[in-house]
Amino acid sequence: MTSSQPPHLPQHRQGSEPGRQNLDPHLDRYAARTAGMTASEIRALFAVASRPEVVSLAGGMPNLTALPLDSLSTQMAEVVADEGLVALQYGSAQGVPTLREQICDVMAMEGITAHPDDVVVTVGSQMGLDMVTRLFCDPGDVIIAEGPSYVGALGSFAAYQANVVHVTMDDDGLVPDALRAALAQAKNAGQRVKCLYTIPNFHNPAGVTLSGPRRAEIVEICAEHDVLVIEDNPYGLLGFDGQTYPSLRSLDPENVVYLGSFSKTFASGLRVGWVLAPHAVREKLVLAAESATLCPPTLNQLVVSKYLSTHDWKGQIKTFRENYRERRDAMLSALEQHLPSGCTWTRPDGGFYVWVTVPEGIDTKAMLPRAVTARVAYASGTGFYADGFGSRQMRLSFCYPTPERIREGVRRLAGVLESEQELVRTFGHVSTRSVSGPQFPGPDTA
Amino acid sequence: MTSSQPPHLPQHRQGSEPGRQNLDPHLDRYAARTAGMTASEIRALFAVASRPEVVSLAGGMPNLTALPLDSLSTQMAEVVADEGLVALQYGSAQGVPTLREQICDVMAMEGITAHPDDVVVTVGSQMGLDMVTRLFCDPGDVIIAEGPSYVGALGSFAAYQANVVHVTMDDDGLVPDALRAALAQAKNAGQRVKCLYTIPNFHNPAGVTLSGPRRAEIVEICAEHDVLVIEDNPYGLLGFDGQTYPSLRSLDPENVVYLGSFSKTFASGLRVGWVLAPHAVREKLVLAAESATLCPPTLNQLVVSKYLSTHDWKGQIKTFRENYRERRDAMLSALEQHLPSGCTWTRPDGGFYVWVTVPEGIDTKAMLPRAVTARVAYASGTGFYADGFGSRQMRLSFCYPTPERIREGVRRLAGVLESEQELVRTFGHVSTRSVSGPQFPGPDTA
Repeated sequence: MTSSQPPHLPQHRQGSEPGRQNLDPHLDRYAARTAGMTASEIRALFAVASRPEVVSLAGGMPNLTALPLDSLSTQMAEVVADEGLVALQYGSAQGVPTLREQICDVMAMEGITAHPDDVVVTVGSQMGLDMVTRLFCDPGDVIIAEGPSYVGALGSFAAYQANVVHVTMDDDGLVPDALRAALAQAKNAGQRVKCLYTIPNFHNPAGVTLSGPRRAEIVEICAEHDVLVIEDNPYGLLGFDGQTYPSLRSLDPENVVYLGSFSKTFASGLRVGWVLAPHAVREKLVLAAESATLCPPTLNQLVVSKYLSTHDWKGQIKTFRENYRERRDAMLSALEQHLPSGCTWTRPDGGFYVWVTVPEGIDTKAMLPRAVTARVAYASGTGFYADGFGSRQMRLSFCYPTPERIREGVRRLAGVLESEQELVRTFGHVSTRSVSGPQFPGPDTA
Repeated sequence: MTSSQPPHLPQHRQGSEPGRQNLDPHLDRYAARTAGMTASEIRALFAVASRPEVVSLAGGMPNLTALPLDSLSTQMAEVVADEGLVALQYGSAQGVPTLREQICDVMAMEGITAHPDDVVVTVGSQMGLDMVTRLFCDPGDVIIAEGPSYVGALGSFAAYQANVVHVTMDDDGLVPDALRAALAQAKNAGQRVKCLYTIPNFHNPAGVTLSGPRRAEIVEICAEHDVLVIEDNPYGLLGFDGQTYPSLRSLDPENVVYLGSFSKTFASGLRVGWVLAPHAVREKLVLAAESATLCPPTLNQLVVSKYLSTHDWKGQIKTFRENYRERRDAMLSALEQHLPSGCTWTRPDGGFYVWVTVPEGIDTKAMLPRAVTARVAYASGTGFYADGFGSRQMRLSFCYPTPERIREGVRRLAGVLESEQELVRTFGHVSTRSVSGPQFPGPDTA
């Protein structure tokens, strides 16, 4: 059959009306969920070329310099030479069985007893988060999350049109009474609360850890209120004194979906994470994962599996912990030494982040361009809230730069804050200003 | 703060009512979209252990035996040794810039002129499909697709609660008048048609290719009706005579989203695919991808990039083509020789699949357990339709087994079909019987 029309480029109906300023001809076609898709302040950092003169305390990139690249290189070669026809081929959507067994060994370090059948390997724990939201959240459902919360989680929740309600934290993590209040309020408003999303250990971005007694209490509150717990735990093995905490999953296996990751304990660029789900949920989770990526990359799974079986991976985690502890110490002492009075901050026992509150009148988002001009970058607080809060907060990452660079970065930041305070004293509040992507610095490459 | 309640395992409210037979206590919690998530007949094949005595003509695994594993192994080692701190680190959500440039070179082979800025690297083209559906489809929106269509696409469409309307094909691919009729019918029914999803080259599962004149016609019909074209092209470079066809993207860059993949031209286990989107769409696509996986695995992108820059990748594709051509020939001649009269099938000029129609009265899904007993497996046709059609069809894959195994498999299949026809002659229609996962054979490993 041939066309009766000439094969020239077709005329499109959209975007061509006279006087209409629509730069995107597809604007009327997008799904409703795209309304929640906006470039996050934090993620934009990844996309922009880095300038080496800027000390970035903004990114969350793990410090990989401690990895034994030579032996990893050899192992990678062996995986392809010995198992190439498997490593380069499609695999199951649930993931490589041997790796799922090893993942159970890793989780046992935090008190979790699990069966490999209930583990689903994902493309980083971000995919796990996305899949769990896909399974459980209809548009308008409420997810309760700490305030502040992980920016990537807020992105996934927005993509599924879930509404996020933030609950406050203190130095012992999520406050149970605040959780109760939020649940009561949602109930009164006729909202359906589907999940509590929580990062109990070395919180991103808050840097605090949920205390032992609160763990049991929070798990009970959620069970009472028929709310699923999503426990996101990328940093649990990075406690600076080697301490671990009992996972929420171990306290209530049937009501907690657990998200794990090798991004912070091995290598983020492999994108290997996992979900441990109640058995009844696992089958649907595999189906969801299948429709999302067919299967996680086989090569990457075999590389992680080989690493776990041949390397002293616990020793490697200890090395990471020591590196991060040294950097945390550098940051805390520099904050103590340099930051002007009126600033407060958290004191993390593990993980990557310190959460800073600046004096009233200073807006961290508006200040960012001035900070970058002074060659230091941070993540402003509003990106970690779904509700616009956080303008007096910022996240400082100590994971990536050297201790010397961290000290220098904090010194520069203190100078910016002092100038800002001077402005506030002279002119009152400093106005909020919208900051677009390219003004953000890239991650610290020095 | 300490809990006033003992830290025992909480009591759950769901699933504990006396007399209630609810094996999944989370049943009332799932999102509405999970109703469409059912184990596909085809995907289940991946999950079940393979039996070597069964000739599987069911899977779609590429034949990787022609890959130069030794030199790939060396390259992989070099990537980690030379660029390990990049390869093992987070990257941008859009993908590695060098690889995106190389992807433009690959697409140029099919007449596409594109800018690397408009390419988004994905975790296989399945993720691209999922992201495009996420961007464009609200629940209830209609996607028009060929009937039969790719089972993984149907899975993604179901996950976003889109309704699939199938349009018929003939030996020249999608029939334009059938497309017009479907569009008119949807319009009359008040439905919003968002996309045409099409596999123009060496269709999975139908094995046919869209003719040149129809390409222009279909692109025009879609533009006229304000319908976005999703062009899925994993097999385009696997034409057995080395022929390529102009991509739909090249005919209408502003109204076609193009999905590409290295799964069939290099290695599926790396999970590296891409989307080429109109520039206006690309930014939203990156945001969607970010919330789905943060970024595609950096290691895998560098491995593909190095492969493309140092290997004779066009020569490798030629080798693949020759392997698949030999297998296609083996299958077609065996079908000709063995299949009982009343069977018809397509004659693909490329790709992986032959689509077979069996005589009336035979149900390919009901027949499958008997085929497996006779040590041959195929993919029954209903999995490739969203509407239950396909019970007289089956997909036979010639990509993976050796020519000898293919001939033996077809010989066995012919025997099963003959017995089935004998049953039909004696008892009338053979009853449909539900087939559960474990009765499916695994992919052919012989």
